[in-house]
Amino acid sequence: MSNFSSNFHILKSIGHIHTPYKKKAPYQSVDVAKGSFKLILDEKYEKGLKELEKFTYIYIIYYLDKVQRSNQLTLSPPWANNSEIGVFASRSPDRPNPIGISVVKLIKIEKNHIYISGIDAFDGTSIIDIKPYIKDLDSKKDANYGWLDGEENQDHINLHIKGIPHKH
Amino acid sequence: MSNFSSNFHILKSIGHIHTPYKKKAPYQSVDVAKGSFKLILDEKYEKGLKELEKFTYIYIIYYLDKVQRSNQLTLSPPWANNSEIGVFASRSPDRPNPIGISVVKLIKIEKNHIYISGIDAFDGTSIIDIKPYIKDLDSKKDANYGWLDGEENQDHINLHIKGIPHKH
Repeated sequence: MSNFSSNFHILKSIGHIHTPYKKKAPYQSVDVAKGSFKLILDEKYEKGLKELEKFTYIYIIYYLDKVQRSNQLTLSPPWANNSEIGVFASRSPDRPNPIGISVVKLIKIEKNHIYISGIDAFDGTSIIDIKPYIKDLDSKKDANYGWLDGEENQDHINLHIKGIPHKH
Repeated sequence: MSNFSSNFHILKSIGHIHTPYKKKAPYQSVDVAKGSFKLILDEKYEKGLKELEKFTYIYIIYYLDKVQRSNQLTLSPPWANNSEIGVFASRSPDRPNPIGISVVKLIKIEKNHIYISGIDAFDGTSIIDIKPYIKDLDSKKDANYGWLDGEENQDHINLHIKGIPHKH
């Protein structure tokens, strides 16, 4: 038998993401997004932001507590031709641990408020961590699109990947 | 008063990372690392890996349960000249929520075993999530080095960033 301590981990909310998305959010982070996007860190963590503003991009790690979940391990994106994708091969928010990661542009920091480029999260989403996005560590020039490359309607899929609004 | 449900979140371990690092780990993920690195996912999640192998890189999100913690919000890296850095401007494992993120090369997948390039984690570290690293979303050409750019001993710091072993 396994025990609780080794199989479950407790995280605390360290702040909240503020976005224009009250009821629905786009599929992925949106550089072109309109509206105001910022992270409001709990004041007690403000000291931890020292020197962060020097980075062009940051990672936001958040808890997807406002997403409906099915516990399924595969999914079939309606906009993709591929019949079945494993949840770990997708960025779907409906996954075993509802943790989201987004790379966003850092605009400015004022006290415990961090102004950022668009992010595909509901207003009020809990922040778990903020990390610097460091060029050599995180920017991989030879990265690819995985199974998305095999899809026929690549231009359309790219709109979904980038979260650019469009009609079907 | 805040309540438990909105301020704390429970994550489950979905597998473990296997590395050669039994007692100490390097500072960051290491492409040049020697030894065997793989993720062993719990068998019940194997279906979720479908189509993942088509990606060049993946994100591993893990729980740093083997790291000593101080609860400090700033740190002074011994190898950097900058006197004080906020924990959110660093990739230190000693942070409010001990969550680690690494971008690693995916080598091959055999059943529930995912063979990867080097990662700076202790052997047996709990895996929380695996996500595809998608070119347009995650590879930012104009990313920078943040406060690390202002350091004088840039060549030396790059060894730390890349986790390349060296003498002091």
